[in-house]
Amino acid sequence: MLVALAGGVGAARFLRGLVRSHPPEAITVVGNTGDDLRLHGLAISPDLDSVMYTLAGLSDDERGWGLAGETWQVHDALVRLGEPGWFSLGDADIATHLLRTRLLAEGASLSQVTLELCRRLGVPVRLVPMSDDRVETRVEVDGPDGPEDLGFQEYWVARRAADPVRRVRFSGVEHARPAPGVLDAIAAADGIVVCPSNPVVSVAPILAVPGLLEAVQAAPCRTVAISPIVGGAPVRGMADKLLPAWGVEVSARGVAGLYAGLADAFVLDQVDAEQAADVTSLGLQAAVAPTVMHTPDDAAALAKTALSLL
Amino acid sequence: MLVALAGGVGAARFLRGLVRSHPPEAITVVGNTGDDLRLHGLAISPDLDSVMYTLAGLSDDERGWGLAGETWQVHDALVRLGEPGWFSLGDADIATHLLRTRLLAEGASLSQVTLELCRRLGVPVRLVPMSDDRVETRVEVDGPDGPEDLGFQEYWVARRAADPVRRVRFSGVEHARPAPGVLDAIAAADGIVVCPSNPVVSVAPILAVPGLLEAVQAAPCRTVAISPIVGGAPVRGMADKLLPAWGVEVSARGVAGLYAGLADAFVLDQVDAEQAADVTSLGLQAAVAPTVMHTPDDAAALAKTALSLL
Repeated sequence: MLVALAGGVGAARFLRGLVRSHPPEAITVVGNTGDDLRLHGLAISPDLDSVMYTLAGLSDDERGWGLAGETWQVHDALVRLGEPGWFSLGDADIATHLLRTRLLAEGASLSQVTLELCRRLGVPVRLVPMSDDRVETRVEVDGPDGPEDLGFQEYWVARRAADPVRRVRFSGVEHARPAPGVLDAIAAADGIVVCPSNPVVSVAPILAVPGLLEAVQAAPCRTVAISPIVGGAPVRGMADKLLPAWGVEVSARGVAGLYAGLADAFVLDQVDAEQAADVTSLGLQAAVAPTVMHTPDDAAALAKTALSLL
Repeated sequence: MLVALAGGVGAARFLRGLVRSHPPEAITVVGNTGDDLRLHGLAISPDLDSVMYTLAGLSDDERGWGLAGETWQVHDALVRLGEPGWFSLGDADIATHLLRTRLLAEGASLSQVTLELCRRLGVPVRLVPMSDDRVETRVEVDGPDGPEDLGFQEYWVARRAADPVRRVRFSGVEHARPAPGVLDAIAAADGIVVCPSNPVVSVAPILAVPGLLEAVQAAPCRTVAISPIVGGAPVRGMADKLLPAWGVEVSARGVAGLYAGLADAFVLDQVDAEQAADVTSLGLQAAVAPTVMHTPDDAAALAKTALSLL
């Protein structure tokens, strides 16, 4: 049994490789929900959806997010109605959100809803949100007119991560409980994988849920993390804007330092091979491998490397 | 100032003619909400939407309902997710429902939301739901396996009006209050028009809201009704299945009889000219005119006839 801590697209691509090297039914993915938002009344869980769509074979790999063959009719009509259009929701994606929103309104928890969506979409792993309680990643920035406190999607999608970041916090996390089954899965795991996701806004919110970091640290199995930073820049996303707000160097070894108290092993990209010694000096076993996943084969090879370290 | 009592598509077509013969800003349309439903968590008001879309010039006249240029991506994705597909919601239509649902969830009343939707869509008349309280048209039928109590859309769209009707009732109507402004508009009207809508499930729910029938009867102005039945059959819809459940003949004079205590004048189609004497004998002024509205010009001519009777 494996447990994977996962953000969005980077994690989803890695997991697509992992399920080729490990039985999917023996994988529990704990997904970040700090990026979740309500828009047009819809309950949207971008990271859970990225994992679901990718593992269901429905993702648009060329665009890099969302569903293949997606259309934007509702979005266009909402904009014609005067609604904000900064967050593009595809039509088929909206169908997912409608179902999620309805089930939540009927009293189901996010983890129950996620289980049901995975069943209907044909997702082979067990995907669990980090918490059924609302945790909201907030990004405090120096905006053009002074300090601002933005929701994560507002910071990233609406404002394109243009504003200098002062602080990232996870609003509500102090009262959040791990979703049912999360702590049990971690305690029973034969290995834990920290996917190549943004350490600040994808992995940290998960570990900030009270009890979760402690559970990973207390788990008798080994934990391996994969660097999301290659050659001093994130493979995708805005980690380069966020790591400095935490005083962390935008590098593989910078991320390794963040995971030093958590992981036993760390996979860094071959272009960063010279940082392997720094990773080792942090007390982590270092492995150098190609980490940029252009194809599912790339992802499967990376997953094999990660598994070999557990 | 005119007040029009309106159901869905038939009323919308008539109103498109009325706004050519009377200043739209001097028309209050009181719309039926007995057909409203929640589907996929969305608050849907089919009759209000038909009026809105038609008067905003956005309706699909060929199909006869919904928006021109409509697509069905969300619907198809919902069906792929295993959701019921018996009620086809177009993508642009869903944008309307998302906005309505969100505003209702934020605490706005249906009449406030309708005003806002009309403003955004560019609807020139004042459209008011009959009530902000939930009234649900229920159709009790002899189903294939015995008596059933169906929601109106279930009866009409899902079951295609195939089941013999025992009874039609307006659940919740006894506690419903007329929406703000409805009684005032009726009391101040210079004329009231009962649009060519289904008497049983479009007009009757409006008049069943406590105080509304009395207000129309007490209004000092004249009231004219237009027959929705032509040559013994409804121009559209299922009035032929419903009128018999009320013991009413499916004919112009049958409908005139229903409106005898309410209206002063009644417009019936030229193919029913021989029923004019029966209408007169009910105490109503009868006018014979073409009532089938193939074009906006047809509707404008019919509206002129109706206005001449006020």
